[in-house]
Amino acid sequence: MKIIVGKDETEMANIAAQHVLSYMYTDKRMNLSITGGTSPRKMYEILVPQVKDKPYFSNVHFYNFDEIPYRKEDREGVTISGLREAFFTPANIPEANIHKLDQYNYQTQDERLKQDGGLDMLILGIGADGHYCGNLPGTTKFGDGTCRVENDQRLKDRILPEFDNVVEDVPEYYVTMGPRSVMAAKNLVLIATGTKKAAIIHRILTGEVDENVPATLITLHPNLTIILDEDAAAEIRKHHVI
Amino acid sequence: MKIIVGKDETEMANIAAQHVLSYMYTDKRMNLSITGGTSPRKMYEILVPQVKDKPYFSNVHFYNFDEIPYRKEDREGVTISGLREAFFTPANIPEANIHKLDQYNYQTQDERLKQDGGLDMLILGIGADGHYCGNLPGTTKFGDGTCRVENDQRLKDRILPEFDNVVEDVPEYYVTMGPRSVMAAKNLVLIATGTKKAAIIHRILTGEVDENVPATLITLHPNLTIILDEDAAAEIRKHHVI
Amino acid sequence: MKIIVGKDETEMANIAAQHVLSYMYTDKRMNLSITGGTSPRKMYEILVPQVKDKPYFSNVHFYNFDEIPYRKEDREGVTISGLREAFFTPANIPEANIHKLDQYNYQTQDERLKQDGGLDMLILGIGADGHYCGNLPGTTKFGDGTCRVENDQRLKDRILPEFDNVVEDVPEYYVTMGPRSVMAAKNLVLIATGTKKAAIIHRILTGEVDENVPATLITLHPNLTIILDEDAAAEIRKHHVI
Amino acid sequence: MKIIVGKDETEMANIAAQHVLSYMYTDKRMNLSITGGTSPRKMYEILVPQVKDKPYFSNVHFYNFDEIPYRKEDREGVTISGLREAFFTPANIPEANIHKLDQYNYQTQDERLKQDGGLDMLILGIGADGHYCGNLPGTTKFGDGTCRVENDQRLKDRILPEFDNVVEDVPEYYVTMGPRSVMAAKNLVLIATGTKKAAIIHRILTGEVDENVPATLITLHPNLTIILDEDAAAEIRKHHVI
Repeated sequence: MKIIVGKDETEMANIAAQHVLSYMYTDKRMNLSITGGTSPRKMYEILVPQVKDKPYFSNVHFYNFDEIPYRKEDREGVTISGLREAFFTPANIPEANIHKLDQYNYQTQDERLKQDGGLDMLILGIGADGHYCGNLPGTTKFGDGTCRVENDQRLKDRILPEFDNVVEDVPEYYVTMGPRSVMAAKNLVLIATGTKKAAIIHRILTGEVDENVPATLITLHPNLTIILDEDAAAEIRKHHVI
Repeated sequence: MKIIVGKDETEMANIAAQHVLSYMYTDKRMNLSITGGTSPRKMYEILVPQVKDKPYFSNVHFYNFDEIPYRKEDREGVTISGLREAFFTPANIPEANIHKLDQYNYQTQDERLKQDGGLDMLILGIGADGHYCGNLPGTTKFGDGTCRVENDQRLKDRILPEFDNVVEDVPEYYVTMGPRSVMAAKNLVLIATGTKKAAIIHRILTGEVDENVPATLITLHPNLTIILDEDAAAEIRKHHVI
Repeated sequence: MKIIVGKDETEMANIAAQHVLSYMYTDKRMNLSITGGTSPRKMYEILVPQVKDKPYFSNVHFYNFDEIPYRKEDREGVTISGLREAFFTPANIPEANIHKLDQYNYQTQDERLKQDGGLDMLILGIGADGHYCGNLPGTTKFGDGTCRVENDQRLKDRILPEFDNVVEDVPEYYVTMGPRSVMAAKNLVLIATGTKKAAIIHRILTGEVDENVPATLITLHPNLTIILDEDAAAEIRKHHVI
Repeated sequence: MKIIVGKDETEMANIAAQHVLSYMYTDKRMNLSITGGTSPRKMYEILVPQVKDKPYFSNVHFYNFDEIPYRKEDREGVTISGLREAFFTPANIPEANIHKLDQYNYQTQDERLKQDGGLDMLILGIGADGHYCGNLPGTTKFGDGTCRVENDQRLKDRILPEFDNVVEDVPEYYVTMGPRSVMAAKNLVLIATGTKKAAIIHRILTGEVDENVPATLITLHPNLTIILDEDAAAEIRKHHVI
């Protein structure tokens, strides 16, 4: 495990972008699973001009690791839409290099990934509750592969903002790579910024591995890099973990 | 994960020996942690003549991953003694290439391994109860690194045969690489033979990840190879896991 | 570079077979280019029973690196025929895992290899004149990729025995992976046995890199393993190269 | 081989800096050999603020690959002095992570590198005459390891500017990693900018491998990345090499 602390969110985003690029500058196929949401926004802003229309990145394939479909299923889901907006579209990534996980194909995701040679890297954020991808406390078990999670009311309330608070759009379920699928990636990169993440970062690096704090598991991956800003690193600094 | 089934114990041992050798035929330092006990006896018999006095294996370093000291601490512990008898001594491995874990240095084991470049491969057996190394049900937690485990009466009874049933030799504790330390190895190889292992092999490959069945965790390692004979594979064959 | 010396031809063949196997025991696609001719016969004898009908080797793909077609082109060429007889047929390698190089497709061989992810390992013999694959002195240049070589009378005489001395079968040309293509493999393994190879082994390990001694180039590959028997190692032992 | 073309010198420098960083963001020891001279100046300017005082780069060790000593040997040589000025000093690289090659230790350089685990990456420039490191046409042979090269008058004239045109400082010899030593690195990165390099870039990528054009050899390395700006790529674009 390597822990890297940037001095602020911008430096963190820059380091994270370099990490992603470091997998792209190769001569063989690279399969990268990347995270949506707000935390990597700056990272994508840095990446876009460096990736856009570069023929030497044609070897790089992208995968989303979870998806929340619209209830009516009349358009692409929340995750892939966000990745398109933040990265794929402005960076002009060819459609052939985008491998969608969605409600229609999640049951074959793990097999397809294996056929494609496995994920070389998966970059993920972490929630204050210890969730990553769609692995929220109380949803998936450590042994689960890519699976479907039924939304109870708590989950529906939680994802409502992703649908601009339009209740009718909130679906009955979502799909996500489970802990087993995520651990199968060759390399994991965890990014976090801000004081709201300081406690959970400290928790996963010092406490027990517990299904109720899902990200505790990924600290057991043999090739994990954690990239933080100083705010997110505040608790581990205070307790001399680093 | 790759599952390899040899037709019998001898073929399994041969395949396991080839696996160990495949890490040794390199031009750089290789750190291998190898298992004692009875299951790998045949593997060591196959390895010894191929390894003995070969200058081209000077790059290979060996580590034991657990140790049960004698109560009086008047000699080396059970694990290293067994490895010496089965492998190090007949194969004439130089002392400088043997890195002992024992009751005196276990607290620095994880740091020393990191300094040495990490374990390239750790080969381990599995108990019918799902234990591996010294991680028995009820002893270590998934998050534990190399640690000391206190022997209650149940554990004392269990390890008594290792001391030729001499009660006075049974110690109050043993040391072991914990789940966190084992997961940090770059590659894991799990070997098992015999019908007595068929149920636990099926269990770890199909059921939940559970601290009470310690080896369920290692099925989440991204580079795991499982080598079985047909007897140990009986249940997973029956249930079409492979 | 790692140099391994077995005590005799049988031990050398065993070590070489283990090398090949070490690339096969993985969970991802492996592309191996293997050598025909007489020197690896024992190696294939050792490999066949270990490879035959093993489902866990379905990830392994085989490539020949040169081909001498029959003049009439009424059957498969000499190299692939020899590999079939010595290995593919007795080991029951599925046709889908055999990737033929021949006179019809040699111009796209390098591009196809790149599309397939490149060669993970290429194992080759060496001639007393320093040739390897079809790179004989005076035929290819260091910078050549896979190419066609025209047979002058000297070459025709030389390959005549490959055609059971039937002059009418000897073709006007052959095809071979050139030095550039061979160097592009991730790992090279060179095998040699017998006193007739002692001088050339010494030559390539000590003298200048020279297109007239083609194998001198491959000593510059960053991942080269040389496997010899004591006879082939006689000169380098005498001159304390090892 | 991967060829990357940045639109101008600045983009090229940025890409090159990212390449160097991609080797640094790891959790294990990394041995990097880096180039002095004027071409990588911008690259170092980009690297310095990202590397300075970062504890997470303590795993990275730096090596120079050639050295021109001052004739009086009263101070460090030209290469290491230039690297200190451009990178080591402003980036505050600890002295323990700087491994000097000089006139006193060049004979053991290759053995020391091997002991250190080999070079993970070597980044080099190229001269219009095809030289790289101290391998100028007519000096070293392809088979040479790290060696000493005697300066004839032509060479003395050539390196005079390195000594601010002070003739008395120009030495009788210099030392350099030879072609064999350079090829032994796990990865090579070649950088070039400007129209003056366009012809030689085209030459090494299309013509024969020739000791009189030293860099033709490194195009045979299995892990080579070439980073250019559009000016340096002009000839290969014109001839549709890329």
